[in-house]
Amino acid sequence: MEPRAAYSELLRRVAEICDLSSASALLSWDQETTMPKQGAPARARQLATIAGIRHDRFVDGRIGELLADCEAAPGKFEDIERTQLRELRHDWDRATKLPRSLVEETASAESSALEVWRDARAKSDWKAFAPHVRQLMGYSVQRAQALGFTERPYDGMLDDYERGADEERLDALFAHLRPRLTPLIGPVLERRGRVDSSCVRRPLAVEKQAEFGLAVIRAMGFDLDAGRVDLATHPFCSGIGPGDTRLTRRYDPNDLRPALYGIVHEAGHGLYEQGLASELRWTPLGSASSLGIHESQSRLWENVVGRSRPFWEHFLPDLRRNFPSEFRDVTADQMYRAVNEVATSLIRVEADELTYNLHVLLRFEIERGLFAGDIQVDDVPAAWGEKCGELLGIRPKNDAEGCLQDIHWSMGAFGYFPTYTLGNLYAAQLYEAAQRDLGDLDGLIAHGEFAPLREWLRAKIHRHGRRYLPAELVFRATGADPSAEPFLRYLHAKLEDVYGI
Amino acid sequence: MEPRAAYSELLRRVAEICDLSSASALLSWDQETTMPKQGAPARARQLATIAGIRHDRFVDGRIGELLADCEAAPGKFEDIERTQLRELRHDWDRATKLPRSLVEETASAESSALEVWRDARAKSDWKAFAPHVRQLMGYSVQRAQALGFTERPYDGMLDDYERGADEERLDALFAHLRPRLTPLIGPVLERRGRVDSSCVRRPLAVEKQAEFGLAVIRAMGFDLDAGRVDLATHPFCSGIGPGDTRLTRRYDPNDLRPALYGIVHEAGHGLYEQGLASELRWTPLGSASSLGIHESQSRLWENVVGRSRPFWEHFLPDLRRNFPSEFRDVTADQMYRAVNEVATSLIRVEADELTYNLHVLLRFEIERGLFAGDIQVDDVPAAWGEKCGELLGIRPKNDAEGCLQDIHWSMGAFGYFPTYTLGNLYAAQLYEAAQRDLGDLDGLIAHGEFAPLREWLRAKIHRHGRRYLPAELVFRATGADPSAEPFLRYLHAKLEDVYGI
Repeated sequence: MEPRAAYSELLRRVAEICDLSSASALLSWDQETTMPKQGAPARARQLATIAGIRHDRFVDGRIGELLADCEAAPGKFEDIERTQLRELRHDWDRATKLPRSLVEETASAESSALEVWRDARAKSDWKAFAPHVRQLMGYSVQRAQALGFTERPYDGMLDDYERGADEERLDALFAHLRPRLTPLIGPVLERRGRVDSSCVRRPLAVEKQAEFGLAVIRAMGFDLDAGRVDLATHPFCSGIGPGDTRLTRRYDPNDLRPALYGIVHEAGHGLYEQGLASELRWTPLGSASSLGIHESQSRLWENVVGRSRPFWEHFLPDLRRNFPSEFRDVTADQMYRAVNEVATSLIRVEADELTYNLHVLLRFEIERGLFAGDIQVDDVPAAWGEKCGELLGIRPKNDAEGCLQDIHWSMGAFGYFPTYTLGNLYAAQLYEAAQRDLGDLDGLIAHGEFAPLREWLRAKIHRHGRRYLPAELVFRATGADPSAEPFLRYLHAKLEDVYGI
Repeated sequence: MEPRAAYSELLRRVAEICDLSSASALLSWDQETTMPKQGAPARARQLATIAGIRHDRFVDGRIGELLADCEAAPGKFEDIERTQLRELRHDWDRATKLPRSLVEETASAESSALEVWRDARAKSDWKAFAPHVRQLMGYSVQRAQALGFTERPYDGMLDDYERGADEERLDALFAHLRPRLTPLIGPVLERRGRVDSSCVRRPLAVEKQAEFGLAVIRAMGFDLDAGRVDLATHPFCSGIGPGDTRLTRRYDPNDLRPALYGIVHEAGHGLYEQGLASELRWTPLGSASSLGIHESQSRLWENVVGRSRPFWEHFLPDLRRNFPSEFRDVTADQMYRAVNEVATSLIRVEADELTYNLHVLLRFEIERGLFAGDIQVDDVPAAWGEKCGELLGIRPKNDAEGCLQDIHWSMGAFGYFPTYTLGNLYAAQLYEAAQRDLGDLDGLIAHGEFAPLREWLRAKIHRHGRRYLPAELVFRATGADPSAEPFLRYLHAKLEDVYGI
C-alpha cells in the first residue's frame, strides 16, 4: 500500500485499540470504586473478552503489512511520524509473540485475583491469596518467556514496566542506595524529638479533608472538568481516555497525611495524563514514557513540592479555613516538620522519603527470590517479616500490614515496584533542573504559583508521551543522564533541615 | 460441523458479544452518572468502536454457518435450545441486514446527541438539539429500511422495541383508550378537592428520602449486592451484566413522590434483570422479552403496588421513622390519596395513571407525524404545544418542560414511547392474574410480604428472558391474550375509590 495511506490506516487501527483500552480501563476503575460485589465474575469475563479482542486486533497481520509498507519509505514521514512507527513496531513485535489464550486467561485471572486479594487482605489471610499469586506468577513467566526472556523471566517483567531495566542494574542501584539510606535511620530516630506530628494526627472531619485536598489539586492545575476523584480501597490514577482522568483517594479520619499526600500523589500522575499533547492522543505515542517517569510526576508533587516548607507557607491559610480550630496555632514550619516525620512503618504508601525506597527494595528482593525459586509462595509472609526486620527494624504482626498490603500482585504486576524508586530519583533530578530553569521556584510555590512548574513539566515531560525513552527524556529535560545523586542531595538537605543531621 | 459442537461454539460467541454489550452498558451508564464533561468526545468514539466490533463479530458468516448446522438437526436439541436457536436466528438475520458503517455512526451520533440534549434541555433550546434529531431520525429510517420496512420505516422502529407492534395496531389501541380516558379528566379535576397532597409536598431532606427509597426497594427484594443506586439527571435501570444491575434516581427536595416512585419504578425493572434464570445468562435468551414487558414490571411495582392503600399501610411507619415530625399525623389513607392525585401536568415521568397514557399518545403522534413528513423537526415545539393542549388542556411554557423533557430521542429511540402504554396494560393484567393465583395479595402487601408477588413474577416473567414473545408470555402468565380491559377496570376502580367517580 502507498505509505501515507498505510500510515493513515495504521493510526485508525491504533485509535480503535485505544478505545478498547479505554473500555478496559473503565471496567477496571469501576470494579475498584463502584461495582456491586456480585458483578465480579461477569466483570472478569468482560475484561478477558476485551483483552482478547484487543490483542487479536493488534496482532492482526494486516498491521504488520502496513508497518512494513511505511518502514520501506522512511523519507515519506516526518520525524514524529517515524517515532510513531518505531514505537508501534516495538509494541507489535512484542504483542505478536504472545499467545492469545495467555492474554485472555491472564486478564480473567487478574480480575478474579483482585476480588480474592481484597477479601484476603480484610481477613489478613495470605493462604487464601497464595494460589492466585502462584497462578499469576505462572502467567508472568510465560509472558516474559514468550517475549524472549527465556533465561531470566524476571528481567522481562522489569523491562515490561521500565524499558531497559533488569535485575542486574536494579541490584546495582539498590546496592548504591541501601548503604546511603540505612545508616541514616538510626540517627534520625534518635532525634525523633525534633519533629512533633501531633498537629496532623488528630480527628479531622473527612469531608473537610476532601475539600482541602481538592483545593490543593486544583491549585496544582488538575482539571476536574476532565477528571474526577472517588473513594477506593487503594489510591490510584486511571487515565480512562482523553478528557477523562480519574483519581481515587482514601482517608484516615485521625491523620491529615494519608488522604492529602495520597491525592496530591495521584494528581501528579493525573497532570501527566492530562498534559499529553492533543495531537498524540489515540496514537502509538499517546501514553507515558514509562512507569518510572509516571511515578516521578506523582512523587515530585507529593514529596518535593508537597512536603516542602513553601508549600505549607502557601496552603496553611487554606487548611485553617477548613479546620479553623484544629490548625489555629500551628505554624508552617510545624506543618513542614510534621509531614516530613521519619518513622519506620510497615505500610509502603505511607512511608517517609528516607525509608520508602527500602520498602521497594524489600519487594524487589521478595520478587526476585520468588522467581529464582529461592522463596516459595507459601513462605512469603515469613520472608517478608525477616527482610522487613533487616531493612527497617520492624516486622508486621499480620499479613494485612505485611505482604497483603499492596494491590500489585493481584494485578499480576510483578516487577512493578522498582519503578517507584526510579520515580523518586527522576523526581529529584527533574526538580533540580526546574529550579535551574525557573529561578526562585521555592518563592513561586510559597506564593501559590504552581503554573510555572506545571508548565515546565508539561513542556519537558507530559506533552511528549512516549516520544522519548525514559533515559533520553530525563536527559533532554535535565541535561544529564539519570542519576541517584540529585535524590541523595535532596534527601540529605531535608534531613539536615528537619533532623539536623 | 457436528450440531452439538456447533451449538457450543455459537453460545461461546454469543457470550463474548454479551461481554461487549456489558462494556457498552457500563460506558453509557458512566456517561450518565459519572463521566467528567470533557470525556464526552472520547466516550462517543469508545461506544462507536465497541458497537462496530460487536456488530462485526455478530454478523460474522461463521455464526450463520454454525446456525445452519444446528438448524439442520433439530432432533439433537431440547426445546429450550431450539428456542435459543430461534431467537439467535431472528437477531442474526436482522443484524446481517445492517451496514456496519450505519451501526458505528449511529452509536457515535447518539453519544454526541446525548451531551447536546443535556445542554439544550438546561437552556430550553430545541433549536440546538434539532439538527441531532434530524440526524438520528435519518439513521433510524436507514435502519428500519435496511431491516425491510421500506414503505413504513416507523413500523420498523416500533417493531424494534416491541416485536409485532406497528403504527396501525397502536393507532387502534390508542383509539380505544383515548375516549375512555379523556372524558374522565374533567370530572376528576372538578373533584380535586377530594385529594390533599400537601402532606407529600413539603421540604423533605433528600438523604432521608434516599434512605426510605432504599428501604422500599430492599423490601421489594432488589438485591443491592448485585446492584446499586446512583444519582442521575434521568432515572433509569441499566443491566450492566449478570450480578450488576444499576438504578439511578433524582430528587425533588419539596415532594416525596418523584424520588420514591422513580426508584420503585426502576427497581421493578431491576427485579426483572436480577430474576433471569442463571442458565440463560450470556445466551441469546438472556434478555427481556420486550420493552413493554420490561415496563410492565416497573409500572406494576410503581403504580399497582406502590400507589395502593396496603402499600402505605405497611410503609407509613417506615416513612415516619425517617421523617418523624413531617408524617406524624398523616394517615395511610391520606398517603394513598396524595400519591394518586390526578393533575394535568407537563412532565410524563411524573404524570398520574389517568393522564400518563395521553403523554405517550402525544409522543406517538409527534413521532408518526415526523416520520410521515407531516411535522418538521423545527416545528416540534409548536406541534407539541398544540397536541398537549388538545390532550391535556395545558401547554408547556418552554421546550425544557415540553419536547426536550425526555432523553429518548437523544438516544435515537424513536418508536419507544408506546411500550410505556403497553407496559401499563400488561401490568394491570398481570396483577389481576397474580391476585387470582395468590389469594389475598392486598393483605400480603399490607403486611409487607412482597416475596409471594415477586416470586410469582419471577416464575411467570423474569426467569424466562426472551423464551416467549410478549403476547405469549402474557398469555402463559394470565391465561388470556393481552388486553386493555384489566387496566381500564383497575383505573376505574381507583378513580372511584379516590375521586368517587
